[in-house]
Amino acid sequence: MAQVLTVRLLLAFLAIGSCIAVEVTEHIDLWPMPKSVSHGTQRLYVSKDITMSMQGSMYSDEKEILKDAFQRVVDLMKLNHVVDGANPSSSVLTGVNIVVHSLEDELNFGVDESYNLSVPTVGDPLHAQIEVSNLTANSSSLQTFSQLCYFDFTSRLIELISAPWKISDTPRFPYRGLLIDTSRHYLPITEIKKMIDTMTYSKLNVLHWHIVDAQAFPIEIPSYPKLWNGSYSYSERYTMSDAIDIVRYAEKRGVNVLAEIDVPGHALSWGAGYPSLWPSDSCKEPLDVSNNFSFGVIDGILSDFSKVFKFKFVHLGGDEVNTSCWTATPHIKKWLDDNHMNVSDAYRYFVLRSQKIAISHGYDVINWEETFNNFGDKLDRRTVVHNWLREDVAPKVVAAGLRCIVSNQDKWYLDHLDATWEEFYRNEPLKDIDNPDHQRLVIGGEVCMFGEQIDASDIEQTIWPRAAAAAGN
Amino acid sequence: MAQVLTVRLLLAFLAIGSCIAVEVTEHIDLWPMPKSVSHGTQRLYVSKDITMSMQGSMYSDEKEILKDAFQRVVDLMKLNHVVDGANPSSSVLTGVNIVVHSLEDELNFGVDESYNLSVPTVGDPLHAQIEVSNLTANSSSLQTFSQLCYFDFTSRLIELISAPWKISDTPRFPYRGLLIDTSRHYLPITEIKKMIDTMTYSKLNVLHWHIVDAQAFPIEIPSYPKLWNGSYSYSERYTMSDAIDIVRYAEKRGVNVLAEIDVPGHALSWGAGYPSLWPSDSCKEPLDVSNNFSFGVIDGILSDFSKVFKFKFVHLGGDEVNTSCWTATPHIKKWLDDNHMNVSDAYRYFVLRSQKIAISHGYDVINWEETFNNFGDKLDRRTVVHNWLREDVAPKVVAAGLRCIVSNQDKWYLDHLDATWEEFYRNEPLKDIDNPDHQRLVIGGEVCMFGEQIDASDIEQTIWPRAAAAAGN
Repeated sequence: MAQVLTVRLLLAFLAIGSCIAVEVTEHIDLWPMPKSVSHGTQRLYVSKDITMSMQGSMYSDEKEILKDAFQRVVDLMKLNHVVDGANPSSSVLTGVNIVVHSLEDELNFGVDESYNLSVPTVGDPLHAQIEVSNLTANSSSLQTFSQLCYFDFTSRLIELISAPWKISDTPRFPYRGLLIDTSRHYLPITEIKKMIDTMTYSKLNVLHWHIVDAQAFPIEIPSYPKLWNGSYSYSERYTMSDAIDIVRYAEKRGVNVLAEIDVPGHALSWGAGYPSLWPSDSCKEPLDVSNNFSFGVIDGILSDFSKVFKFKFVHLGGDEVNTSCWTATPHIKKWLDDNHMNVSDAYRYFVLRSQKIAISHGYDVINWEETFNNFGDKLDRRTVVHNWLREDVAPKVVAAGLRCIVSNQDKWYLDHLDATWEEFYRNEPLKDIDNPDHQRLVIGGEVCMFGEQIDASDIEQTIWPRAAAAAGN
Repeated sequence: MAQVLTVRLLLAFLAIGSCIAVEVTEHIDLWPMPKSVSHGTQRLYVSKDITMSMQGSMYSDEKEILKDAFQRVVDLMKLNHVVDGANPSSSVLTGVNIVVHSLEDELNFGVDESYNLSVPTVGDPLHAQIEVSNLTANSSSLQTFSQLCYFDFTSRLIELISAPWKISDTPRFPYRGLLIDTSRHYLPITEIKKMIDTMTYSKLNVLHWHIVDAQAFPIEIPSYPKLWNGSYSYSERYTMSDAIDIVRYAEKRGVNVLAEIDVPGHALSWGAGYPSLWPSDSCKEPLDVSNNFSFGVIDGILSDFSKVFKFKFVHLGGDEVNTSCWTATPHIKKWLDDNHMNVSDAYRYFVLRSQKIAISHGYDVINWEETFNNFGDKLDRRTVVHNWLREDVAPKVVAAGLRCIVSNQDKWYLDHLDATWEEFYRNEPLKDIDNPDHQRLVIGGEVCMFGEQIDASDIEQTIWPRAAAAAGN
């Protein structure tokens, strides 16, 4: 098992744009392993001119999303090798027919992601068949198909061995996330897009973009145009057009983009453009709870976000709130007293008021687990609690009827550089959750690449292959 | 100076496909610094629809080499940002006119690489002008142009400040190399192409491909098809078609590919397919000097190479030859005795016979410095001696009338991970060479990324920015 897993992880790792085809042996080289797989022993050759068709499909692909996805998969199979062998006279797979049973062409969350993939050994023409209920499931189905194919150095063709194949698959969890952090280190757009590409190889479907934090505010907010004064430099920034471009790029690849603002704690950089967001010039975090302007800015950000980040969820952070600046700042201390609040009350007030703003812009809210740990019963009932601190939180969250995402830092934080891929693989999101109704509330897991220790030069090799190990879970 | 240099190095580093535009300030952000630069103070906007023209050019670009190069440069300037500002009504640079004074469309070595680049502030249409004597100089001229341009976060346009510009440039050395090593670690084709892309940012023009060595023989040799049995695995290989593709990719970007076989010393992997190349099964290096088959294989390799690697030079290695297997193997010992040779004679015999084979295939030969150190007066007079061991060798080589490439390992070996970019920058290829006739024999320098300590996951960040520092020398 361990050896097979090693090979698969290697495959997943090598798929990072710099891949090596491997000779397929007896075991099944698919990652993550689909739910149901059966195969034969015949070798097929993939035509150099393999085409995609959509016979019997409701969806017509007018935007060419599927066509582009298919071309990417063909390129991935080639791994930049020159495919110049002669097509044999038989056993040539000339096409892939994709049937999509829905007109919908938007990426959706929580829909049926199951797919069926079959590769026959007879047929004229000889075509593989993919069947999905909607476009959302397509990325994974093509990824599985690509993993059956490899460049062969003898025939100089792409080959597909062990046919016929019959594969049925559906992901274990609807939410399969990777966090990247552009506040601790700016990540160039090229690198963010590369992360999205590599996520698809392991069928991860949510890019959690921890955009801003205490260190830097790199994104443009048209409603409050001085916010990105908090960027590291004039050019370490993303325009809103850039963000739209990134979201579109991701959606075409079956990846949702979850935007985060982490309030009130991780927001020091916001005050570079608007110093009144700071409690005072000498005490700059958390955001000033007593100032309506704080909530006006949050409203502006989330209003702007809602035009760009179309994912069902927004992440409002809420972790690691050190409230000492609130009590140390006279005007805030007075406000607390006037409103009969202690700092715990004020923290709850801030989080709940922010949740209401997000909901008013159409979002479901995700918050880090401290919000649940401190006032779980007060959170909006649609809140998704994002675990990170403790392994025992998820059972409590789902027992309380809220949804949960698992990211326990001891196992799934990629910035824990000493955590091995084996630990990533073994981490179990449903640990100590036996009730099926409760299990369903764990919408998934996420591996987190917080950015203090990495930048564009080493983010890829820090994320992979460990993120792929988690994806195989 | 140091600070300016830091900024420039940062620029060169960030140019690794994951770039950040920087706000240009007073100093000149060009790297390597052109020979002559003058500029003004005006800001221009680069049209979103900037076009390339070739008015007055002899070369017609039927193969679209220039057109593609121009498009790459425009993409590089954008750094994946969405350029969606409105073109202003004035000061818009709408095109670049490139005049090539030669019909030749092949990449050549040792030709006039000078170029003139001017960016006026008046004109209708307002076009930058590039003038080169031949296509070979073009890559550097466009690179310089791209370094004048950056994405501006206010206008959402590409801007070009400090116009008008007048730049005249010619490289200090015709040979500006980077060595990569695909024997110690296989490098995927995607990664090799990325190396070629990044070389152009620092105007390096020779990719020295140390293809095979003792550890692995990853390339296909049609004349001796079992040679790549010495690859690490079935798929860690390059077909000859792949090699042709890589060479074409490089040539289009102004980069020559120098192929190396390192004989007789670094060739243990050759025997995986042809064990008779080994002195014996228990003593496997250097290649059997007594066996004509050794030279037959070298002839086959160089014959095949000559159809693919069209660069003027081939590299035959010749370093670190430990001859103990020759004396320890009875049939070779007998052959030495029969031919009245000691091991030094046999080493010389091997190198000189290999040189003759390479010359018969049209190549000029490059050999590592031990060949010169041991029998410099016997080397073919067109030999280029490749320094690596000692700093004092280049003066001796050029005094002896041979050409030299400088790669002294204490300063320009990238696998010396503790060597800083400052050391790379300060290394002087003409040290202790004052005679201009001798200076001309130093055809250039090369930084060497031997592959024991890197693979595709970290080769980029190990090479850059230090290679760029050397390129600025």
